[in-house]
Amino acid sequence: MNMPANAAKLSVSGKRLIRRIKDLGEVGKLDNGGVNRLALTDADKAGRDLVTSWMRALGMSVSIDRIGNIIATRKGSKDLTPVMTGSHIDTVRAGGLYDGNLGVLAGLEVVETLNDAGLELDRPIQVAVFTNEEGARFAPDMLGSLVFQGGLALDEALQAVAIDGPTLSEELQRIGYAGQDECGAVKPHAYVELHIEQGPVLENKGVQIGAVTGVQGICWIEFEISGVSNHAGTTPMNMRKDPMAAMAAITHFVRQLTRRYGGHQVGTVGHCKIRPNLVNVIPNQVIFTVDIRNTDRALLDKAEAEVLAYAQEVAQQEGVTLQHKSLARFDPIAFDPAMIDRVEANARDRDCSVMRMPSGAGHDAGIIALMCPASMIFVPSVKGLSHNPAEFTHEADLVNGANILLDTIAALAQE
Amino acid sequence: MNMPANAAKLSVSGKRLIRRIKDLGEVGKLDNGGVNRLALTDADKAGRDLVTSWMRALGMSVSIDRIGNIIATRKGSKDLTPVMTGSHIDTVRAGGLYDGNLGVLAGLEVVETLNDAGLELDRPIQVAVFTNEEGARFAPDMLGSLVFQGGLALDEALQAVAIDGPTLSEELQRIGYAGQDECGAVKPHAYVELHIEQGPVLENKGVQIGAVTGVQGICWIEFEISGVSNHAGTTPMNMRKDPMAAMAAITHFVRQLTRRYGGHQVGTVGHCKIRPNLVNVIPNQVIFTVDIRNTDRALLDKAEAEVLAYAQEVAQQEGVTLQHKSLARFDPIAFDPAMIDRVEANARDRDCSVMRMPSGAGHDAGIIALMCPASMIFVPSVKGLSHNPAEFTHEADLVNGANILLDTIAALAQE
Repeated sequence: MNMPANAAKLSVSGKRLIRRIKDLGEVGKLDNGGVNRLALTDADKAGRDLVTSWMRALGMSVSIDRIGNIIATRKGSKDLTPVMTGSHIDTVRAGGLYDGNLGVLAGLEVVETLNDAGLELDRPIQVAVFTNEEGARFAPDMLGSLVFQGGLALDEALQAVAIDGPTLSEELQRIGYAGQDECGAVKPHAYVELHIEQGPVLENKGVQIGAVTGVQGICWIEFEISGVSNHAGTTPMNMRKDPMAAMAAITHFVRQLTRRYGGHQVGTVGHCKIRPNLVNVIPNQVIFTVDIRNTDRALLDKAEAEVLAYAQEVAQQEGVTLQHKSLARFDPIAFDPAMIDRVEANARDRDCSVMRMPSGAGHDAGIIALMCPASMIFVPSVKGLSHNPAEFTHEADLVNGANILLDTIAALAQE
Repeated sequence: MNMPANAAKLSVSGKRLIRRIKDLGEVGKLDNGGVNRLALTDADKAGRDLVTSWMRALGMSVSIDRIGNIIATRKGSKDLTPVMTGSHIDTVRAGGLYDGNLGVLAGLEVVETLNDAGLELDRPIQVAVFTNEEGARFAPDMLGSLVFQGGLALDEALQAVAIDGPTLSEELQRIGYAGQDECGAVKPHAYVELHIEQGPVLENKGVQIGAVTGVQGICWIEFEISGVSNHAGTTPMNMRKDPMAAMAAITHFVRQLTRRYGGHQVGTVGHCKIRPNLVNVIPNQVIFTVDIRNTDRALLDKAEAEVLAYAQEVAQQEGVTLQHKSLARFDPIAFDPAMIDRVEANARDRDCSVMRMPSGAGHDAGIIALMCPASMIFVPSVKGLSHNPAEFTHEADLVNGANILLDTIAALAQE
């Protein structure tokens, strides 16, 4: 690493960072302390206006691309590609103050810290605010970074329809964030994103920093099992076609599979709909979803195949009809090994305990990793809560994360 | 058996029986061909008026007791206790033409057949229409026969509140069926009831008559399992408290238990409610019901104990909190062996194939069996359907059942 002599001594201001987090948290604030800034709503516009005003106040040039991504640039002293950081400021319907916002505002804090120190770096530093990361108003999620990276066509993304009616294009126009810049025209030198863990691992293990190794692959299967409704008393077991018995067997199998596989294999049945749903009537239809994730593509494929094969076997045993469809399928993403090493080393340099871990949730970094070396820094989420007004991360952890982001960006910007 | 010489040669009129079934089916008829005669509604009153007019036309004396049971009596030649048959004419919200009605109208057909033959029997014959058998408007079900038998206090039953507001007492007054006769004042000599099977066994086995051995015991358990909602991706398996995993394990256990026990053990999970019920969120609460039934009290107790013990074990394994409550618990009822033999022998005498079988559903006969020797005659239900507008039993089967009812009553009435 080729770090400027005095950058290692810099530290971010926790007070300033938290001030911005709280100020942004006032925009779209809910009575219960949470935040509702669904993408491209009036609240999102107000949040964007506030953040871009901060960017300009830091002397950054602000550009808006055609999908509404905000890219703020701090000039570099040489004609080199930028080091990028960022995240998103849209939230779920009842979100918290940290998810996404931390990544953007820590980026601004890094810039302000460098500015205050009068430190010029070789490469430009960019702070990105990606459009519609949550996917709570428009599908798919991570839409802005996907268009930026080239994984989704701009025209298709602009036609996305909000859950409340209008198209993404119309909403961008309406709130004044339909920019003219080409999406992803400049490929970053590297990308690093600070984010809350959104899970319980760091807190449970008492570790301060997660050096994120990649994003888990995701497989969502929806099963629709059809049987025959009948009287729960008068129908002998061998004359039943009971979809609930099949559903239970498959769900139990998924739980056992995660035990057999161990490692980063997770499996969840979160949704289930039963018809007619009466105590003394054998159901005629059960629709349910299986969510399985793994960091290893081969294992994820194997798990999916096992679940589907077992489901067929059980359906035959129980005499029910089974249909299934894929609701989502994303391959695992592995971050750049050198970038992961860098985050880990920088955490140690700041005397922080650190562990390597995958991300169980999708992030813009997982998309940008497909166009340049990328990684993420995780800080602990209290009780693992996220997408929840009670989402919280302690100040010391926010500062640790932002300092490691500072060190990582500063070093990358001198390459 | 001491049957009058010419009774064995008598046969009911299928045409007349079906005419009455269809005429009664016009009362409360639904557009889809089904019937809605919820207990003590205007439709039930109209049905009662029609049936009592038929009873009177057959020369029977009609008495209404204080819980609204209709008891029609054909005189006997000696001063002996009556032989009783009957059932109910109330229906579920969308019921069919046969459930209950067959038992009452076959009773009238038996009386008409005996009348036409000019046959006097020693004992009186009573045809009962019991109030609120279905339990679809007032709880509990089999309310009228319960009060008749003494298992439920009259005053308590009169205070039962309808799902639409009024008390049973008010509704009896309103429709003019609040009688003055004491409930169950005369203990019958014996009771025999003809009913459709409401299940698929007779049809599947190609058997014409079921000689019913008793009513299955019922155990309904409601489980409420509480865990912690978390992200399906970011929460490692060993940090979850997933109530759905526990629910699936318990449901799977119930299915396996029915395989282990075999015989008349059945088990059903028909109702399940999941919160928040989202594909990528570990649920925080699952409420579901387990319905287990057996004809053997000891086995039913054992099954219940096994399910509860396993549920506790799984709850501990999965780190979730488990509560359970009993929604219903009825001991199995065994019919009188001599009465079962009689039905079986009478079926053979009519050249009908016959099998012994328990009833999976509750019936008035199961209640009356606690006060006098009782049994039931089952005839096949097409596709096992009941509580359904599509409920159907072929004419030949109706006639077989009514003839066996005739023979059984005629023999009992000469004892």
